[in-house]
Amino acid sequence: MPETLPSDSVGIVEPQTAYFPESFTLANNRVLPEYQIVYETYGVLNQAKSNAVLICHALSGNHHAAGYHSMDDHKPGWWDNYIGPGKAIDTNKFFVVCPNNLGGCDGSTGPKSINPNTGKAWGAEFPSLRVRDWVHSQAQLADKLGIAQWAAVIGGSLGGMQAMRWSLEYPERLRYCIVIASSMRLTAQNIAFNETARQAIMSDPNFAEGNYIEQNVLPEKGLSVARMIGHITYLSDDGMGKKFGRDLQSGSFALGTEETVEFQIESYLRYQGRKFSASFDANTYILMTRALDYFDLAREYNNDAVGAFKKAQCKFLVISFTSDWRFSPERSREIVNALIHAERDVSYAEIESTYGHDAFLVKGQDRYDNIFRHYLKGIET
Amino acid sequence: MPETLPSDSVGIVEPQTAYFPESFTLANNRVLPEYQIVYETYGVLNQAKSNAVLICHALSGNHHAAGYHSMDDHKPGWWDNYIGPGKAIDTNKFFVVCPNNLGGCDGSTGPKSINPNTGKAWGAEFPSLRVRDWVHSQAQLADKLGIAQWAAVIGGSLGGMQAMRWSLEYPERLRYCIVIASSMRLTAQNIAFNETARQAIMSDPNFAEGNYIEQNVLPEKGLSVARMIGHITYLSDDGMGKKFGRDLQSGSFALGTEETVEFQIESYLRYQGRKFSASFDANTYILMTRALDYFDLAREYNNDAVGAFKKAQCKFLVISFTSDWRFSPERSREIVNALIHAERDVSYAEIESTYGHDAFLVKGQDRYDNIFRHYLKGIET
Repeated sequence: MPETLPSDSVGIVEPQTAYFPESFTLANNRVLPEYQIVYETYGVLNQAKSNAVLICHALSGNHHAAGYHSMDDHKPGWWDNYIGPGKAIDTNKFFVVCPNNLGGCDGSTGPKSINPNTGKAWGAEFPSLRVRDWVHSQAQLADKLGIAQWAAVIGGSLGGMQAMRWSLEYPERLRYCIVIASSMRLTAQNIAFNETARQAIMSDPNFAEGNYIEQNVLPEKGLSVARMIGHITYLSDDGMGKKFGRDLQSGSFALGTEETVEFQIESYLRYQGRKFSASFDANTYILMTRALDYFDLAREYNNDAVGAFKKAQCKFLVISFTSDWRFSPERSREIVNALIHAERDVSYAEIESTYGHDAFLVKGQDRYDNIFRHYLKGIET
Repeated sequence: MPETLPSDSVGIVEPQTAYFPESFTLANNRVLPEYQIVYETYGVLNQAKSNAVLICHALSGNHHAAGYHSMDDHKPGWWDNYIGPGKAIDTNKFFVVCPNNLGGCDGSTGPKSINPNTGKAWGAEFPSLRVRDWVHSQAQLADKLGIAQWAAVIGGSLGGMQAMRWSLEYPERLRYCIVIASSMRLTAQNIAFNETARQAIMSDPNFAEGNYIEQNVLPEKGLSVARMIGHITYLSDDGMGKKFGRDLQSGSFALGTEETVEFQIESYLRYQGRKFSASFDANTYILMTRALDYFDLAREYNNDAVGAFKKAQCKFLVISFTSDWRFSPERSREIVNALIHAERDVSYAEIESTYGHDAFLVKGQDRYDNIFRHYLKGIET
């Protein structure tokens, strides 16, 4: 970190914890005897409590969306490019709340937590979750914060699925729903990538059938391969080509020396895998990818997305990125078409980008930034 | 297998072995003290020895391209759909030769073979190979068979790379070059998938740094994940969606029962992974993917593909498939454009298909079959 904080940063932030002592029944009918949610907030809640915005994180995100935890931090929160004073999600205007999802590994109750019934870490015994479970726990957090209605619920990727589910589960509790680089359900290919990542984790002997914490080991190699698989799907073929091409890690590869040849993309991916596996929990990764696989917006509405969205009362902004092949623009157009047929108020922007699925996180994309910024400017608080 | 062989089958075939006792210097200057190539042939070599066709196999292929090894075989060779009497590669006309590549694991000298210098299996010590090494060893096989010039060299995917390399290394030794679903070089994304697959293998403790044969173990789990990764890239998103969609393996997934939910695509991939890992050699898989990564048709021609192809004397047929995202039609158009600018005789067909990269193996695609068949009909022998 620089010695001074950037002027458009929310600055030093401190995570808070909300504890819910009552039992919480999940979508699969299993019951958490208690749970806690770690979250961060940026900006100030106005007196009318009408300026609160909920940020829903994606697969590997957490509650630390903006600012720094200390002056020693190398990097700000994961969506710092878009959250801060004067930024698209303007903290001079909005009170921004970002929780770590239930089942996460950064402080909210999840597989790493102690199961009060056994006194041991939940591990693989932690119940599987659905997107709706996150939405319901986020609603309990909103209750605790005195927020009867969100000005907006915003999310990219898996976060967008939470935002859409909010519009159906609590239609009266949000005025705007912003869905970025998301989908109403995964394709077979999406599921295939997730399953391959899970198999990589579960094949690691250190996974120990999910009880690695009890056994004091970590399935780092399996989780690293899982992250490499994921990472490929977050970037575009073009973007990878532009960033790495076929450049070599060191020197040339003259005939005769190729035993030591390494392409830059290889060492980049290995680094990403190692970094991730040192900080993320394998059971959480499995749980989150399962939630992605299971998500199917319209399933309990007779597979009728139009009928489903008729329940929604909020306005929608849907954004996609041309080079996103994980959740391609076609997936966003399906959302938009369903909303139009459901006669909901929807705006849609397809952003030209080479950043692939990750584009929703990347700064310096003027059209995305402008659309996002102006849409949020128009929200009355 | 049925009790009788199909009339358009080459029937029961027997692999043959060619032994080369002389030392063979590889592109990386390492030397194999001796080697053998296992191969199959279909059809009859004419007196002029002018009707021979070389089939080059892809990553996981081998010499068994057509027919059956016994009446108990469940499946014929990997390209049986296109090789046989009256089929596109008509064995009534052509003498078809298909070798298992050097470094393979089905009988040709490779990592599973005994290193004569140590008396132990080569394992990870087997030298890394380039596409040109395959071409040179195939040329030695041609010498042994008395074939001075191939009527055609034909290959899909990695096989297409061998076919193109043939046209540059031995321009006078082939009259036609047929390149299907291939590329002049891998993209960063292609390399990324290969590297992730290799990491999956090498992360398996049973890989034992490549010496699993000596240690009497097999890295089946790692190889299985590697195959799953590969398999996703062989199919198209659409094709997977049509074949599997979000269908469940068994039963419904009512809320409350999803602990046991399994999508069909998941069990399909796991099955493919297990099947492959029981029959394929992990060191060969690493070696073959490395050869793919290193292949760069024009690298030693100052990265000038046009200049490179000026060396070629044969005619070319290039075929791509619309849904192939591993080697997309764009990659084939690059080949075709280079050939046009090099003033070579080239025909190109882009086939509408939902089968992805695997399309080159799949039967029942009329346009592909017709173009392939008629082009080969036009070859004088």
